[in-house]
Amino acid sequence: MAERGRGWARAVRGLLLDVNGVLYDSGAGGAVPIAGSVEAVRRIKASGLKLQLCTNETQASRESFVRKLRALGFDVSVAQVTAPAPAACHLLRERGLRPHLLVHHDLVPEFAEIDKTNPNCVVLGDAAENFTYANLNEAFRLLIGMEKPVLISLGKGRYYKETDGLKLDVGAYMKALEYACDIQAEVVGKPAKRFFESALAELGVPPEQAIMIGDDIVNDVGGAQQCGMRALQVRTGKYRSSDENHPEVKPDAYVNNLAEAVDIILQEL
Amino acid sequence: MAERGRGWARAVRGLLLDVNGVLYDSGAGGAVPIAGSVEAVRRIKASGLKLQLCTNETQASRESFVRKLRALGFDVSVAQVTAPAPAACHLLRERGLRPHLLVHHDLVPEFAEIDKTNPNCVVLGDAAENFTYANLNEAFRLLIGMEKPVLISLGKGRYYKETDGLKLDVGAYMKALEYACDIQAEVVGKPAKRFFESALAELGVPPEQAIMIGDDIVNDVGGAQQCGMRALQVRTGKYRSSDENHPEVKPDAYVNNLAEAVDIILQEL
Repeated sequence: MAERGRGWARAVRGLLLDVNGVLYDSGAGGAVPIAGSVEAVRRIKASGLKLQLCTNETQASRESFVRKLRALGFDVSVAQVTAPAPAACHLLRERGLRPHLLVHHDLVPEFAEIDKTNPNCVVLGDAAENFTYANLNEAFRLLIGMEKPVLISLGKGRYYKETDGLKLDVGAYMKALEYACDIQAEVVGKPAKRFFESALAELGVPPEQAIMIGDDIVNDVGGAQQCGMRALQVRTGKYRSSDENHPEVKPDAYVNNLAEAVDIILQEL
Repeated sequence: MAERGRGWARAVRGLLLDVNGVLYDSGAGGAVPIAGSVEAVRRIKASGLKLQLCTNETQASRESFVRKLRALGFDVSVAQVTAPAPAACHLLRERGLRPHLLVHHDLVPEFAEIDKTNPNCVVLGDAAENFTYANLNEAFRLLIGMEKPVLISLGKGRYYKETDGLKLDVGAYMKALEYACDIQAEVVGKPAKRFFESALAELGVPPEQAIMIGDDIVNDVGGAQQCGMRALQVRTGKYRSSDENHPEVKPDAYVNNLAEAVDIILQEL
């Protein structure tokens, strides 16, 4: 499909890239760059195309996330990362919300500047080991005690794969709290339209001149297309062949990996 | 409302009673009988009416549950308790299912006779402190690894009140696993029709001659009515005045407590 109809690659000025499953795989022994992706990022920068990483990562602050990427060979900066936690901070400030955090330890620094006294909302991230019975009950009691409970969820993924097997993602815990409190969470992160819009604003390119490249048919491809962007699905990461029969979402093209996408886009420049 | 239209109290041969919030309250320092309820159970027995307890309790085996009730002064036997765990065992045997248990420690003895090797389903109860991140991931991995995941949930309550505050109930964790695996749990316990039917079978009385008495407008009253029984809501336990405006469920009558219900029913005998 990448071979046909390369119209999708025309008139591009900027790229949004998903990270896990596009730049690297989380495998046994830690993250491993996907073949060709370090070089592909270098070629994007050399071409003059703008580049922004658009991730639902909530197990690390952007600083430590970028340190990890640089150690893997990716030449990226903190300003090039659009992630749910900073987007949530923006929303909290805008609405005068003071969060109780149920998030991963390593994400807490992102909320350093936010008033967390006397909480009037709960912010839920992929808290991993912090998803204890006691912590979940604490978040629940705060919510059920609010006149109008506000639950902000950093993404709504079902599960993800780690070195030692599949893990429940933030979306499962979001559903538990939604049901217990009879509320609907507000999702910050992909596939929320507002999140893609802020990534585009940081990219500095209008949607019709940007392409999203991701491995998740719904959260990456579907979300970006709803914002008026073109979107490619890579056949790496969590891609499964059944994605190509998805009942609702059709990518503008499939590519074998990021390197192939960049090959085609640069040819059209 | 209990004063008017006592037609609801006629032609009764058996009573199904919810336990928590009808017989006792779980308060600071443990369970406390609700005023008049010990005497009410005694009067039911003396009247010749049949009596069955119909509970979603899954934090204890029936044996230890009955020990607790007898210590509070209620003259009841194990055979008079219809609870989700034995109903689940029946279903497991019927379908040749071998469960992985994510339940409270004290409930495990109920499954002593059930083959649990090489599990092909997950049974979820109110596991309380056993709802750790690791245990929930383990149940999730087993389910997602099954060709056709089977999740059996002992009830689907949102939350309950304990000595030290509100606690998430089994329903919240059921929703988390349902979402992560994209499946629907099978609920054993109130308000499932089949559960009320087995309680009626144990009571030995057809639905039109039985009355359910409970504090939960949906799980007790709505569930029993769907089985063709009459159902009363007591104004004790988790009853809230807003229940009287429930959009879907209308009890056959409200009573202030179990003692009042028994007064009226015995007058009509």
